[in-house]
Amino acid sequence: MQPKHPNDSVCIMTDLVLPSETNPLNNLFGGELLARMDRAASIAARRHSRRIVVTASVNHVAFNRVIPLGSVVTVEAKVSRAFKTSMEVYIDVWIEDRESGIRSLANEAIYTFVAVDETGRPTPIDPIVPETDLEKERFEAALRRKQLSLVLAGKMKPNEATELKALFQ
Amino acid sequence: MQPKHPNDSVCIMTDLVLPSETNPLNNLFGGELLARMDRAASIAARRHSRRIVVTASVNHVAFNRVIPLGSVVTVEAKVSRAFKTSMEVYIDVWIEDRESGIRSLANEAIYTFVAVDETGRPTPIDPIVPETDLEKERFEAALRRKQLSLVLAGKMKPNEATELKALFQ
Amino acid sequence: MQPKHPNDSVCIMTDLVLPSETNPLNNLFGGELLARMDRAASIAARRHSRRIVVTASVNHVAFNRVIPLGSVVTVEAKVSRAFKTSMEVYIDVWIEDRESGIRSLANEAIYTFVAVDETGRPTPIDPIVPETDLEKERFEAALRRKQLSLVLAGKMKPNEATELKALFQ
Amino acid sequence: MQPKHPNDSVCIMTDLVLPSETNPLNNLFGGELLARMDRAASIAARRHSRRIVVTASVNHVAFNRVIPLGSVVTVEAKVSRAFKTSMEVYIDVWIEDRESGIRSLANEAIYTFVAVDETGRPTPIDPIVPETDLEKERFEAALRRKQLSLVLAGKMKPNEATELKALFQ
Amino acid sequence: MQPKHPNDSVCIMTDLVLPSETNPLNNLFGGELLARMDRAASIAARRHSRRIVVTASVNHVAFNRVIPLGSVVTVEAKVSRAFKTSMEVYIDVWIEDRESGIRSLANEAIYTFVAVDETGRPTPIDPIVPETDLEKERFEAALRRKQLSLVLAGKMKPNEATELKALFQ
Amino acid sequence: MQPKHPNDSVCIMTDLVLPSETNPLNNLFGGELLARMDRAASIAARRHSRRIVVTASVNHVAFNRVIPLGSVVTVEAKVSRAFKTSMEVYIDVWIEDRESGIRSLANEAIYTFVAVDETGRPTPIDPIVPETDLEKERFEAALRRKQLSLVLAGKMKPNEATELKALFQ
Repeated sequence: MQPKHPNDSVCIMTDLVLPSETNPLNNLFGGELLARMDRAASIAARRHSRRIVVTASVNHVAFNRVIPLGSVVTVEAKVSRAFKTSMEVYIDVWIEDRESGIRSLANEAIYTFVAVDETGRPTPIDPIVPETDLEKERFEAALRRKQLSLVLAGKMKPNEATELKALFQ
Repeated sequence: MQPKHPNDSVCIMTDLVLPSETNPLNNLFGGELLARMDRAASIAARRHSRRIVVTASVNHVAFNRVIPLGSVVTVEAKVSRAFKTSMEVYIDVWIEDRESGIRSLANEAIYTFVAVDETGRPTPIDPIVPETDLEKERFEAALRRKQLSLVLAGKMKPNEATELKALFQ
Repeated sequence: MQPKHPNDSVCIMTDLVLPSETNPLNNLFGGELLARMDRAASIAARRHSRRIVVTASVNHVAFNRVIPLGSVVTVEAKVSRAFKTSMEVYIDVWIEDRESGIRSLANEAIYTFVAVDETGRPTPIDPIVPETDLEKERFEAALRRKQLSLVLAGKMKPNEATELKALFQ
Repeated sequence: MQPKHPNDSVCIMTDLVLPSETNPLNNLFGGELLARMDRAASIAARRHSRRIVVTASVNHVAFNRVIPLGSVVTVEAKVSRAFKTSMEVYIDVWIEDRESGIRSLANEAIYTFVAVDETGRPTPIDPIVPETDLEKERFEAALRRKQLSLVLAGKMKPNEATELKALFQ
Repeated sequence: MQPKHPNDSVCIMTDLVLPSETNPLNNLFGGELLARMDRAASIAARRHSRRIVVTASVNHVAFNRVIPLGSVVTVEAKVSRAFKTSMEVYIDVWIEDRESGIRSLANEAIYTFVAVDETGRPTPIDPIVPETDLEKERFEAALRRKQLSLVLAGKMKPNEATELKALFQ
Repeated sequence: MQPKHPNDSVCIMTDLVLPSETNPLNNLFGGELLARMDRAASIAARRHSRRIVVTASVNHVAFNRVIPLGSVVTVEAKVSRAFKTSMEVYIDVWIEDRESGIRSLANEAIYTFVAVDETGRPTPIDPIVPETDLEKERFEAALRRKQLSLVLAGKMKPNEATELKALFQ
């Protein structure tokens, strides 16, 4: 298995916000954005693993800014860390001002995918080596988030979550 | 402001899995389930607060079981804890076997909503008083999850997160 | 075959009215409501029969009140009477006021479903025993409606429709 | 007000059955067909009245034949009778065999629409004069169906429904 | 193989413009109209060839007039010329004024389809004989358009495109 | 007005092919691809002009390769030439093999957009300066295509189309 970089898996999905995708306040519906991010993230996970991938969990999504009808939205998904058969994917969502062309960050999200074979069984994937500072920071934090997930799911005891424990001491 | 119970806000959304909502493995697409849960949870939050509500974050979603094409899926959303202007909503997703009629839990998810006025500004909401054991357990854990969110977002220092800190000691 | 009660089959589908589902007057499109009722009613029929079910006819739908964009709509479907291989399903549609929380009845509809086996052939189903007064009333009227359907379809002579005939004498 | 003929209002909607519109048996979903018929019928009612029209009721729909994925479906809607402010629309649904080109009738349906002004108030419409034998037959039956609707809705006493009563004697 | 007339293949698709199909200016979205025309044209091509047909190219679409939300739109598609295994389909798009009932031409488009067998291989189709003056004119122009397509695709040298060449001399 | 480069406007839209977007042969429906290309091209035109843009025409689309269900499809749109108020946008569509990761070109298309002000009137836009060889080639050909469009629309006489005429001599 050969190490890959986060950039090898980056998926860029730029699209409009159409009327059918808005809530009664004329902003992009939360559920529609969750669906777009899921599709973009699954493509990143598939590009890294070259396997069929299935969504395992949504670890965190923060809806910081509303996205109005007619916006141009860019969903950018990148594998931030690969574990044995699962991958954490980090997603940044950008909107851009039509007149100035300036882009600003609207949302961030973290999803986890598992690579599976044709029968649906988890299958090993290549490791990942972060390159930029931001990639390194997200790579490090991914392990804490994984422990946190296991603790919340009751599959790991809090005092075994060494990375996480360090955070609170 | 008068306290309400989680059951006052419960939203039940039972629906089929149609072909347009499946992935290439013929199971319910992750993104579509995220969208359904967002709609059901927003109704529960609206019923509790009687306000316009907007999705603030998705705190955790675990996709434990695949949901095949043609399934009858029940999304059940209930406000688990009310803070000053925000609410945590806990969502259970059930599928049922057609022949035996037996229901089983397929997924769990936790979303956070904020109540806003017509101009989009956060507005205070009623407190909530849990009744059943499960409701009490989720009510307690909601505070830890809120602290966790604040820590992850860099808005609270880990050692100020008293509830969370206790967990790792 | 063991008798069941209408309540054993009840299907509750609560959902929002999204912009993509409205007509040019910004109310829920008739066709979309017909589709939602069809899905909810088919789930009730499936729960009663534990079989694959197909829509046989729509017997009556009255659109009494418009349902505006952004409404919370509850479609409640219940088997009202079981015949040899077919079932009448009665559907009530409720909307609720966001501020007061008060529910009011917006529409009523009656659909008929047939239970079929894997090859599409009609297959016998359990009888139904109504419990509440409303269930009893609907159970009685279902027979008249069935005769009416047969008469309208030219499959029964008017003077053989004993239940119906009595109504006009 | 000038009388018009049913043919002046005919609406022909030919379209494919796409995968997103099928049920788990790969046939056109009942709800989707109901929605298509509602749109076609509303166009016929609008063409007759030259007014905004809203669906008042679905009087009868019989699903006689399944319509498989990939079919070419023609929904043909025509106003069958005009009352003071409402219109009955009769809908025939045809499918055609790709190789032979032969068309066959798959479904029939009857909807009622009301013409309204910009404020939503019912507004008078032109009368209709049937021409062909089939149009005459449907025109006659429309009155019986209207009485039936009123009786079922409790707005007319059975013994006042003269047209209908005659049928059962 | 027996010659057919353009009218034997005509497909009429009349439908509403719904809110989910509009752009931020509240007019029918270009992409949605392209999709409707593709479906209507494929039905015309299928009716002429009685084969499975696939879109080979879109030769020209002019968006002359915007089509507002709530419009009644008629897409009328007709095979204009049949080649060995491919067909040119000419599409006219009409909108009608609700109050006057007057129809006006909103768009024109030209698509090319290929008839294929079950394995996807091109298969010969019947010739077409134009009848009206407009059909004859479109039939003649179709050959020039075909040569143009081949020239643009680099599959024919400009000086071999005899029909086209004549146009510029 | 300052010249811009084609790359300043590039829009990348990577997305999956979902079941609801396929034809009966389980490949991406032509109409859906036309709609995706229209959205991507309109974003490129908007990025170049920083104006509201509307589709003026589809000049050419070649469907060279089928795109199967489950594919990862990248639509890449770039302004190829700017005229006074209109822009030609060139669109390349790529699919990628999951196991090898190799990308191949599936389709090409050319759309024209017009920049408009808030009232819908055409408004002047910045010129464009091509950089790469491919961009230069497409820039040159765009003028011929524009003349061709005008000739086909009867707005220019063939012998005035100097660029085009040269091609056939």
